[in-house]
Amino acid sequence: MTKKFVYRFQEGNASMRNLLGGKGANLAEMTGLGMPIPQGFTVTTEACNDYYANGQKISEEIQAEIKATLNALEEESGKKFGDPVDPLLVSVRSGARASMPGMMDTILNLGLNEESTAGMAKKTGNARFAYDSYRRFIQMYADVVKEVPKPRFEQILAQVKEANNIHFDNELTEDMLQDVIAQYKVLYKEAVGEDFPSDPLVQLMEAVTAVFRSWNNPRAIYYRRMNNIPPEWGTAVNVQRMVFGNSGENSGTGVAFTRNPATGEKKLFGEYLINAQGEDVVAGIRTPQPIAVLEQDMPAAYKEFVEIANKLEAHYRDMQDMEFTIEDGKLYFLQTRNGKRTAHAALKIAVDLVDEGMLTEEEALLKVEADQLNQLLHKSFDTAELAKHQAIAEGLPASPGSGAGKIYFTAEEAKQAHAKGERVVLVRNETSPEDIEGMAASEGVLTVHGGMTSHAAVVARGMGTCCVAGCAQARINEEEKTIAFGDKVFKEGDFLSLHGSTGKVYEGDIPTVEPNIGGDFARLMEWADKYRILKVRTNADTPKDAQTAVDFGAEGIGLTRTEHMFFKEDRIPRVRQMILSSTVEERKKALSYLLEMQRQDFIGIYEVMQERPVTVRLLDPPLHEFLPTADEDIQALADEMGLSFEAVKGRCDELHEFNPMMGHRGCRLCVTYPEIAEMQARAIIEAAIDVNKRMGLAIVPEIMIPLVGEVRELDFVRKAVVATADAVIAEQGAKLEYLVGTMIELPRACMVADDIAAVAQFFSFGTNDLTQMTFGFSRDDAGKFLDEYYNKQIYVSDPFAHIDFKGVGELMKMAIEKAKPVRPDIKLGICGEHGGDPISVEFCHKLGLAYVSCSPFRVPIARLAAAQAAIKNK
Amino acid sequence: MTKKFVYRFQEGNASMRNLLGGKGANLAEMTGLGMPIPQGFTVTTEACNDYYANGQKISEEIQAEIKATLNALEEESGKKFGDPVDPLLVSVRSGARASMPGMMDTILNLGLNEESTAGMAKKTGNARFAYDSYRRFIQMYADVVKEVPKPRFEQILAQVKEANNIHFDNELTEDMLQDVIAQYKVLYKEAVGEDFPSDPLVQLMEAVTAVFRSWNNPRAIYYRRMNNIPPEWGTAVNVQRMVFGNSGENSGTGVAFTRNPATGEKKLFGEYLINAQGEDVVAGIRTPQPIAVLEQDMPAAYKEFVEIANKLEAHYRDMQDMEFTIEDGKLYFLQTRNGKRTAHAALKIAVDLVDEGMLTEEEALLKVEADQLNQLLHKSFDTAELAKHQAIAEGLPASPGSGAGKIYFTAEEAKQAHAKGERVVLVRNETSPEDIEGMAASEGVLTVHGGMTSHAAVVARGMGTCCVAGCAQARINEEEKTIAFGDKVFKEGDFLSLHGSTGKVYEGDIPTVEPNIGGDFARLMEWADKYRILKVRTNADTPKDAQTAVDFGAEGIGLTRTEHMFFKEDRIPRVRQMILSSTVEERKKALSYLLEMQRQDFIGIYEVMQERPVTVRLLDPPLHEFLPTADEDIQALADEMGLSFEAVKGRCDELHEFNPMMGHRGCRLCVTYPEIAEMQARAIIEAAIDVNKRMGLAIVPEIMIPLVGEVRELDFVRKAVVATADAVIAEQGAKLEYLVGTMIELPRACMVADDIAAVAQFFSFGTNDLTQMTFGFSRDDAGKFLDEYYNKQIYVSDPFAHIDFKGVGELMKMAIEKAKPVRPDIKLGICGEHGGDPISVEFCHKLGLAYVSCSPFRVPIARLAAAQAAIKNK
Repeated sequence: MTKKFVYRFQEGNASMRNLLGGKGANLAEMTGLGMPIPQGFTVTTEACNDYYANGQKISEEIQAEIKATLNALEEESGKKFGDPVDPLLVSVRSGARASMPGMMDTILNLGLNEESTAGMAKKTGNARFAYDSYRRFIQMYADVVKEVPKPRFEQILAQVKEANNIHFDNELTEDMLQDVIAQYKVLYKEAVGEDFPSDPLVQLMEAVTAVFRSWNNPRAIYYRRMNNIPPEWGTAVNVQRMVFGNSGENSGTGVAFTRNPATGEKKLFGEYLINAQGEDVVAGIRTPQPIAVLEQDMPAAYKEFVEIANKLEAHYRDMQDMEFTIEDGKLYFLQTRNGKRTAHAALKIAVDLVDEGMLTEEEALLKVEADQLNQLLHKSFDTAELAKHQAIAEGLPASPGSGAGKIYFTAEEAKQAHAKGERVVLVRNETSPEDIEGMAASEGVLTVHGGMTSHAAVVARGMGTCCVAGCAQARINEEEKTIAFGDKVFKEGDFLSLHGSTGKVYEGDIPTVEPNIGGDFARLMEWADKYRILKVRTNADTPKDAQTAVDFGAEGIGLTRTEHMFFKEDRIPRVRQMILSSTVEERKKALSYLLEMQRQDFIGIYEVMQERPVTVRLLDPPLHEFLPTADEDIQALADEMGLSFEAVKGRCDELHEFNPMMGHRGCRLCVTYPEIAEMQARAIIEAAIDVNKRMGLAIVPEIMIPLVGEVRELDFVRKAVVATADAVIAEQGAKLEYLVGTMIELPRACMVADDIAAVAQFFSFGTNDLTQMTFGFSRDDAGKFLDEYYNKQIYVSDPFAHIDFKGVGELMKMAIEKAKPVRPDIKLGICGEHGGDPISVEFCHKLGLAYVSCSPFRVPIARLAAAQAAIKNK
Repeated sequence: MTKKFVYRFQEGNASMRNLLGGKGANLAEMTGLGMPIPQGFTVTTEACNDYYANGQKISEEIQAEIKATLNALEEESGKKFGDPVDPLLVSVRSGARASMPGMMDTILNLGLNEESTAGMAKKTGNARFAYDSYRRFIQMYADVVKEVPKPRFEQILAQVKEANNIHFDNELTEDMLQDVIAQYKVLYKEAVGEDFPSDPLVQLMEAVTAVFRSWNNPRAIYYRRMNNIPPEWGTAVNVQRMVFGNSGENSGTGVAFTRNPATGEKKLFGEYLINAQGEDVVAGIRTPQPIAVLEQDMPAAYKEFVEIANKLEAHYRDMQDMEFTIEDGKLYFLQTRNGKRTAHAALKIAVDLVDEGMLTEEEALLKVEADQLNQLLHKSFDTAELAKHQAIAEGLPASPGSGAGKIYFTAEEAKQAHAKGERVVLVRNETSPEDIEGMAASEGVLTVHGGMTSHAAVVARGMGTCCVAGCAQARINEEEKTIAFGDKVFKEGDFLSLHGSTGKVYEGDIPTVEPNIGGDFARLMEWADKYRILKVRTNADTPKDAQTAVDFGAEGIGLTRTEHMFFKEDRIPRVRQMILSSTVEERKKALSYLLEMQRQDFIGIYEVMQERPVTVRLLDPPLHEFLPTADEDIQALADEMGLSFEAVKGRCDELHEFNPMMGHRGCRLCVTYPEIAEMQARAIIEAAIDVNKRMGLAIVPEIMIPLVGEVRELDFVRKAVVATADAVIAEQGAKLEYLVGTMIELPRACMVADDIAAVAQFFSFGTNDLTQMTFGFSRDDAGKFLDEYYNKQIYVSDPFAHIDFKGVGELMKMAIEKAKPVRPDIKLGICGEHGGDPISVEFCHKLGLAYVSCSPFRVPIARLAAAQAAIKNK
């Protein structure tokens, strides 16, 4: 049997969404439910793929199938396509699996030409209406199918109105419209190089082609990437008999939601226009009426509308977003779909639907987009205030939330201003680990360079501070302490407002409102916890972060980065001394200072986390990250250490690496300097014993050795750790269990995971590094070419945002398959940034990990995503 | 059945080498052949592994087995261990699977104590001999088992001789020896903290333990790494009844080879000493006699020796290296093994043995170490002249051969001096791509920084130029143009001589001799070509390199690095303009200049290679490598391009990458700038058409796209290449086949090799990068920590020298398994440096690759290694 590429609405149903697209499947479903739907057919998504496979041509077979289906439609409606007496007119709309702005939307009135327009004029007795429809069609077709710029048509229309001294479209007479049409056709021929097609079949095939083509326009590609929609899905095309909301005062058109999409309130919400087509509503020339007014205008139609709306909501068991048209008093539905909504509304609707008995808890959990919760967890601008402002620049939405404050150009100055009680915004070309305290003191962070995974972005997300990164339009003058966006120059102390969720930058001080996490949030999270299998931990380096995460429901710490602790002002000199020591003894002396500090760090964290598991990673980054670069800093360090400037400078130079990401870091540091691992192990164990004693707990610390690629290096460092830990336990006469495990973040670690599992008590997948090494590019450098990769659809999504299933994911799977037989009870987790990404969380669920770990502010997202993964993959 | 850990010689044979070690297996074999071997037993290599697994203790079971076997030996010999009347004495020697200097060698006379020495004195009637034996035993035991420094014993001996006014050891009387022994024991107790053991069984167990322990001493670890011997092999211990070459004038001991190990000449070669133990020969106090003299001294023993030597050579079918002792006129063999030999000797012996009908060609091929051929292919110092010089410094033996010349500190000056007819040595802190011409003009290259895979090393090996890299003792003063080794300072124009095979640096101008590749070499290579399955290609970027490689037997080019061509003086300005272009048009203009040059490059190479396959890799390195760094160079470029200094500097800064190895390079360049790929494709195709026409050939160019991790990026670049290639072919009205393939050098490429194989016509494994990404460290930076990794036995060998089977090798295997079903005829090769490493070549053979590609000077090595792989894995 040959494949079927075209379906009448009555041949389909809601389950055929992949084939028919969302719009097509819903039109089919509604048809099946006996609702008033103008009939039509859907050209499938497979036809779209065939079009691309076929060198961007619709095959003869598919064209024939479209024609045959059109004939059936003609027969049913009793009208004929292009008929000079009573022509069949159709709308043509795109409809992908997921609702997708950015693609071609709609062509109305297709099928009109000189003859059929005349026929329509005669048949309806409304020549103005007929010629206005033809006029609209030419304009829409030229724009959408042939990309003739709309303003050129608008200009003709304006000129005709001006020449006739009228102001509104509806004042145009038949003659004026004929004049407009004639001029439109001249313009069309001039722009396109051929006559405007009069054959309706040609019009139709061109329109279908245009929809298919729009699947790959840049806006659609961008939208797909942002929403992780694969290019293979393709779009369907819906061809539907036209009904006319603009055929008189007894007609109209509108859009409505079964509930309020902003608040979730259970009340019909929407608007309509009498005697109008859909585009009039959008164009905003006339002000539409609230949907409730329809009850007075057309009580019968309103009653029917409400009945069907309720039926649809009950049928789809979700808030519906519906388009309708009333033609000469008869109501038609043109579309229904689950409505887009704000995070607040999403929560309320999901919880309400459960309370109304319409959804189970599990179903309700699937109704809320996990990523959307982000909106709820951060400060946001007062909506009314924000509306008064125009953005002056746009960067990457690197960390959600909103923040306003006086700008400062160094972390130190930001910190000082914050200490004086000012609200501050830190402005930097890029941030580095020394800036952490300044970032923590800021309402928001703005950087000129760097992407979504730059230092600023990663750290800000971890802190829950809003951040706009990579704002390439900005120019910082560090000496003069100014930042310029084009001509606008701001100096230290001026106010800027940052919208971290959109990437927009505003002048002035826009007031913010605190996040409002109501009872709906708590109830949904409770359900999520009930159904999820994955545990959710957090990546936290301070007691404060740990507390935030616990408040958000974190069940442990999956990653404490000890190096972040090393950057504090009072420690960095000791760290530098440690690094620059030329003997083990000197190094141990510097380490003994750090020991005291690290112990306090861990005590603080244990006190917050209590018996929740805490995984501490040993020192990871290349040592030179800690070193001073400015000559005066080097001199200061030299003075402090009693060394010459040259000696310190020389040692710093020696530590320089060509590729620090692939250099002397991770467990390699501890292989060279086991005394670092020993100090850290001592701090971890001493802190645990101390807190256990004081608080009567039984903390079991998890010590994690990073960047292992070979079991013998793990074994070497593990031995140093275990020897120290056991010695400390013996010294203190305490009892303490502890685990020693490793990060799996190098391809080789995945290949030899069986060996490694024999030594490691747990694995934590470090998917940031694993992604870097697997792809062979660094996050810091990939920004230079990744945009081209997206534009050319080489990468569909950012592998640092969503786990790359085929490469990185397969390596993870292989690692698990190798490790399990060796150590069946091995604890498996993930602590890369992917741990807070819903798509990656589902992947981790399927892999059978025990937990994901993410930044504190993403813990609720991970909890919900984990529940959704469990429910979907039951 | 419990495992057997101890074997009598009569229980073993030559096939048990893995279990008994080389020495033990040969002693067993000779015993089986009825040769005069002092009897004994071997403690197996498995016992050694058990010792390490058991926390460095010999288990009770193994101790018991040793004792039981010792009892059997006592019974057979009729002597008893520690017997005060006629004691059994033994030697204890290590013996691994492969002969391994660096481990403990020998303890003689074990079993002696006060009583048994007295018994021996009485029984032999030679008290001097008995006490001298005891004296030697104490000294050897203390040194080897307890690490008491030898000089402390030598001092006592010297003092006693002085006190007694004698000069030679053999003048020591029994009394003096008793005195020495007493003092030795005091020293022993003082140094070790316990009495010298008098229980022979204790002595034996301690000695066996010491052999096991020596398996992991630093020298042994170093040797294993250099020779790729896995630590798991372990060593066996041979315990053998003592025979005494020092029991009188009718006794003696010696070492002999069945052929000359330096020249391969078929003539007994060796030396012996009358009335001596083995250590006397080594100590060099008395001058040994040539073995031929033995015929006069002891005709019967000599005759028997020659007979057995001939038998042994015939039996092992290889030149033998034998140790023997004559005790009271009776000949004993203590050891035989295949003798070490020079490369020249190895060739001659292998070819002679075939001519003598003793070996088949295949067997002969296995007798020559492939790596050893390196010695034959390069200039070397005149041996006699070299002997007159002392090295003044030592670096890494980065590229073999020898060279002497006047030193110059910049590539440019080296080039100019060379042009004037001087022999020059280029001296640099490190080299970079701009130095290539200067390197080519030099007799040798010396660098202060960088390892075996540094730029200098890689390029020098490719050129066949000798190179000493990473000579850390050297200090260069670039301004004064001097290099200092400690106090010795050399200035521009002074002579230095470099030994690239040893890494040694000499003062002055040591004469060199040309490589002498005789008929034996040609015959062996002919046999190799007959038996190998792998093709051998070369990595060559110039017609000269290509010619060298063809002369050495290369069957094609596996890798032409087009970027090396870009560094030439007349091209780099155009390359810089290409990079700094701000529009596609500007870039295309710069590229059009480069097109002309590249076409000539490829014409030159095709003219040499003719119809042999040539794989050209598109531009690979990060663009900023080509950019100027010095301000004056930036200014010059700015002037040339009519841009401001700031504009050029700014663009250079923008191109800076944190991790260039993981940055904007490889096919990523061509995704961003397809016009580069187009220019290169055009040059490749035009050159091929030109040479085909002029020379009447049918060259099939292979275009290789580097650093692919995702099939869509390959597909994108491939399309640009194919469109250009087809257009060129059409323009020229020519017929030309060509292939487009890819390098597999990222872990992700291996994971998605099935996708990639659908698009790529060939794969070439780029194992340099694949190793970097799989391990997550860069060759340039790993030097900082790899030494610690070797010392701590975390890595057994350098993964950049030998393919890492478990990680990188598994990824390669996976890639092939995925690719083959998709494209069964896919051509598979390797072009990393591993392509010239015999161990890796064998791995490639087993993987079923079609070819290996290596630097020109390693082609013969690869040919031999490929033949050996085919023969071994038949």
